[in-house]
Amino acid sequence: MTEEYVPPAVWTWSKPSGGTVSSLNRPISGAMHDKELPVGVHPFQLYSLASPNGQKVTILFEELLEAGHVGAEYDAWKIDISASDQFSSGFVAINPNSKIPALVDRSGPEPMRVFESGAILLHLAEKFGAFLPAGGAARAECLSWLMWQMSAAPFIGGGFGHFYAYAPVKLEYAINRYAMETKRLFHVADTRLGECRFLAGDEYTIADIAVFAWFALFCEDRIYHNAHEFLAISEYANVGRWVREIAARPAVIRGRMVNGSALPERHSAADFAAVQPAAS
Amino acid sequence: MTEEYVPPAVWTWSKPSGGTVSSLNRPISGAMHDKELPVGVHPFQLYSLASPNGQKVTILFEELLEAGHVGAEYDAWKIDISASDQFSSGFVAINPNSKIPALVDRSGPEPMRVFESGAILLHLAEKFGAFLPAGGAARAECLSWLMWQMSAAPFIGGGFGHFYAYAPVKLEYAINRYAMETKRLFHVADTRLGECRFLAGDEYTIADIAVFAWFALFCEDRIYHNAHEFLAISEYANVGRWVREIAARPAVIRGRMVNGSALPERHSAADFAAVQPAAS
Repeated sequence: MTEEYVPPAVWTWSKPSGGTVSSLNRPISGAMHDKELPVGVHPFQLYSLASPNGQKVTILFEELLEAGHVGAEYDAWKIDISASDQFSSGFVAINPNSKIPALVDRSGPEPMRVFESGAILLHLAEKFGAFLPAGGAARAECLSWLMWQMSAAPFIGGGFGHFYAYAPVKLEYAINRYAMETKRLFHVADTRLGECRFLAGDEYTIADIAVFAWFALFCEDRIYHNAHEFLAISEYANVGRWVREIAARPAVIRGRMVNGSALPERHSAADFAAVQPAAS
Repeated sequence: MTEEYVPPAVWTWSKPSGGTVSSLNRPISGAMHDKELPVGVHPFQLYSLASPNGQKVTILFEELLEAGHVGAEYDAWKIDISASDQFSSGFVAINPNSKIPALVDRSGPEPMRVFESGAILLHLAEKFGAFLPAGGAARAECLSWLMWQMSAAPFIGGGFGHFYAYAPVKLEYAINRYAMETKRLFHVADTRLGECRFLAGDEYTIADIAVFAWFALFCEDRIYHNAHEFLAISEYANVGRWVREIAARPAVIRGRMVNGSALPERHSAADFAAVQPAAS
């Protein structure tokens, strides 16, 4: 017989929340130390990691360059979360939420910050008029599926990934809750991708890039030990077909390398030459 | 001594996930029964509820009408989740994710669907050129804070709200995890609102509407029994100032009534006349 936990009237930050990833969690925000961010020569300065949310942006940059948008040249800098780079004064100034990715757009008269992967995707797609339909039902679909991804990722990563892989204790209730939701989300995408080639219709858009960055890792069995088998991801055949098609795009292969162990920083197209593609 | 749970190799849908709200959760998507959606006379048909995500959209509609955009007339229909309306064939056709709010835009030559509250906000703001800066740093801020809200809500509602208020068992670890994150998110907004009047700067935008819909309920002690005290929400004085200013806007007072118990459906401005404002 276990005694049920009764929350206090007022929550206090009395015990560490624990877990591999969450040991840095705090109930407050803001800079913890002074450190400026490095700045390179290109119009766009990206501060990120090769995590799914980070890869969304590096994939889009590489797609823009592949499509001939030479104005999309960027410097990608790695944010070392084990060194608390995300809590530096420089990073907090461009993302007060202390999460990667964060971007500084220096292409105009004044530098401007953009944070949250979904906002960076929209900002760049609007700026270059690419990978985002200009109007009509295709744009509405693209925005809908992009926002679907933004609200889904916290259930998949912060929910399923946390309780299945990272939490210091395996909580059956929480694992069941988020396994069920993650499977439901895969089923939603699988149904859609049985109706059309890409999420927004015939056209490859930022909605595909956003969803791909997370779903590909499950399909390729590269996230959360055994999650591919645990969630029976191979059931989702339409998602699998779509992942394989997108994963083979040259820009996607490059984008997935950026800020990873083989290519911690990216400053020009030449940086890829010496690196073995991880996704091929 | 409690035995630690060991997840199986393959997850199976063997036990109900439980809880007040989650009893309808399933690991699959799609229609469970045939039922068409009602259609009114206005250009916009909204299918929703007076929950935070639903109120984002009704507040924006009322703001657009208040600002003189007569083309923003809408019919708001209530989706009864206790009757599984969200799993009807009609609803699934406009939102395959089976969540409110969902919109049909009939203002153009062909009706088009838009789902996810963030996508509906962007779609309407772009269409009417209102509550979304046209470009520059203000637009980037608006998009960043809007996306911040979209990725925050699942931690606040699906995380904190679920484990604190709805889950059938009180799990200390999960409550601590999400209480900490909810407080951190309030602190992020509180810091920002100490720097400027609104989230994107001087101008009231869809980012304010999106965050307000959730945060106001905490500030007003109207969500999750005792959460206002548990999370010490009164600490966030800048958020409190901003909530009071926005809550007093006539359009916000109207928007928060729509699809609620006193006004289950909204078909014209006259519908508000007989209703006592809940937020005044």
